Amino acid sequence: MRVRIVGSGLIGTSMGLALRAQGREVEMVDSNLGNSRLANDLVASSLSAPANLVVLALPTSNLNKIIARENKLNPNSVFMDVGSVKVKPQVEIDAISGLSPRFCGSHPMAGRESGGPEAARADLFDGRPWILTPSRSTSAQTLQVVRGLVESFGAIAIEMQAEEHDRAVALLSHLPQISSSLLAGQITRANLDWLPLSGQGLRDSTRIARSDPKLWREILSLNRSQIRPLLEAMQSDLADLISNFDDDSAIEEFIAKGKGGTDAIPGKHGGKAREYSYLPIVIEDKAGQLASLFQECAHAGVNVEDLSIEHSPGQFTGLITLSLSRLDSEKLSEHLIVNGWKVQAIR
Amino acid sequence: MRVRIVGSGLIGTSMGLALRAQGREVEMVDSNLGNSRLANDLVASSLSAPANLVVLALPTSNLNKIIARENKLNPNSVFMDVGSVKVKPQVEIDAISGLSPRFCGSHPMAGRESGGPEAARADLFDGRPWILTPSRSTSAQTLQVVRGLVESFGAIAIEMQAEEHDRAVALLSHLPQISSSLLAGQITRANLDWLPLSGQGLRDSTRIARSDPKLWREILSLNRSQIRPLLEAMQSDLADLISNFDDDSAIEEFIAKGKGGTDAIPGKHGGKAREYSYLPIVIEDKAGQLASLFQECAHAGVNVEDLSIEHSPGQFTGLITLSLSRLDSEKLSEHLIVNGWKVQAIR
Repeated sequence: MRVRIVGSGLIGTSMGLALRAQGREVEMVDSNLGNSRLANDLVASSLSAPANLVVLALPTSNLNKIIARENKLNPNSVFMDVGSVKVKPQVEIDAISGLSPRFCGSHPMAGRESGGPEAARADLFDGRPWILTPSRSTSAQTLQVVRGLVESFGAIAIEMQAEEHDRAVALLSHLPQISSSLLAGQITRANLDWLPLSGQGLRDSTRIARSDPKLWREILSLNRSQIRPLLEAMQSDLADLISNFDDDSAIEEFIAKGKGGTDAIPGKHGGKAREYSYLPIVIEDKAGQLASLFQECAHAGVNVEDLSIEHSPGQFTGLITLSLSRLDSEKLSEHLIVNGWKVQAIR
Repeated sequence: MRVRIVGSGLIGTSMGLALRAQGREVEMVDSNLGNSRLANDLVASSLSAPANLVVLALPTSNLNKIIARENKLNPNSVFMDVGSVKVKPQVEIDAISGLSPRFCGSHPMAGRESGGPEAARADLFDGRPWILTPSRSTSAQTLQVVRGLVESFGAIAIEMQAEEHDRAVALLSHLPQISSSLLAGQITRANLDWLPLSGQGLRDSTRIARSDPKLWREILSLNRSQIRPLLEAMQSDLADLISNFDDDSAIEEFIAKGKGGTDAIPGKHGGKAREYSYLPIVIEDKAGQLASLFQECAHAGVNVEDLSIEHSPGQFTGLITLSLSRLDSEKLSEHLIVNGWKVQAIR
């Protein structure tokens, strides 16, 4: 297989590196001269004959002007894209005569569209989901080529219809981004003196609000039609809460509905979320403390599912909270107490 | 000092344990016989004379009926409460003749009001902020007693007016809870097949939506008047976004405003949030891997600021992302690569 990758950002260059690691022929193309040079230096390859596969690894907003040209240059090649919205590019593909049987849309759930070639890694896709969105016109052979490529990177291929993909990411990725940004926007109303009281809840809920506004401008605008009804549903739920805010039972039902939603989010290994116990431990804020702690976890034979670190304002100690099974929490708690750690109550 | 603690939940019993560890006289009281017995077994103390300090460590909704009785029993004692809303109890205190000079409201930013005596720890308050809300009537001596107690637990006393406290927690704690529950409530609309695609953004944003609905019913209903205008402001921002959702620049401004809000949230040690780098590492999902990783961090002499663990659906590998300074990220990345770790690109 000979692959031509158009777009030398994080995704395109990572694909190039992964293909070179497999000893395949790869050609890197980018209209940005700096990116192009770096990607070619990194991947260091060229094609001995026209490409069998053309990867469109560029912002979806630039796709339109590139596709027709690439199709003329490579009239027999298989095409794929890697953008985070899938219906819009499919419409543009379908408008080009003869291309749609040779095209399969895709979306690697890894890294970010930003980052550039300097951030690329051959193993970026290892173990990550990679959604494929073949259209009704996509030929079986095209799908086979694209699936084979994705799986050769160690990614897990998941087939979905383009429209379903866009609905799913609207709910699972785009709506959380908007919700987080909406909440974080309210913090601009805070008295600065209050902010040292910010707790882990606020921090967790606003973490993704730090994302790049330009990147999200493109993603959200490409998936407007799927996001809009979700925003309206969220607005309607919020309006209901406000108009029933004098009713204690309505408040309890609102919080309980959210709790029901979190129960549906899968935990480890794609299974249903398990009920974890949380074990908080006060540690000194210095290098080596975490190593010692996880050494203890290994000695105790427990499996840490997740963890978070919290720092008290003005203090040089930290609170680390480990998520473990109930049994492991109890085992580890006992083990750590015996060994002199400042273990707090299991929650 | 002799302390009478009314209410043997997590906070009350933890205070009892901390006082006993200091060798002080403590009396534990609870109308729930099981809690009362356990708390007394744990704290194992009694008073040699009437209490100098009475701690009201019970749900604010039960405060009203308890205060008058306790004031009659202890007409010369200093009183404090530990609830998470401060204006309402102050109103009830002010209604009792002669009590307000001897009362100081307070709110330890530690643990949860739920949990019960079995979850209590003497070191629960160590290094955590503890807000004091003296009223205009609170005597200097009362404030001194309460501040002394709080600081003896290793907590950091922060004085605020009750109304300002309630405004601050409405924004920094109650609004994030509602926002997280609101988002999580939308997930109930998801196709179950999509849920394995849930990423870290959704998980972070909905983590606190797992909280206890009954607990939040009480907290939110007690602070209605401070929360309502925040909900209305959030609703107004959401309505603006929806009505301008066809305008790409409006979307970018909305995301940028949220990013501005996150910049105001302090990072470690109460200072302004630093710009961290994120170093993702693929690890095998087994006990001991985290220990080895943090051993490497210690060898490299780097300081891990925060971290998260993400599991790919259906895979028995995990992705751990460390937050470090840019310099430490580069140092650690090089060190780990040399030692054979699957290090991803610094973000």
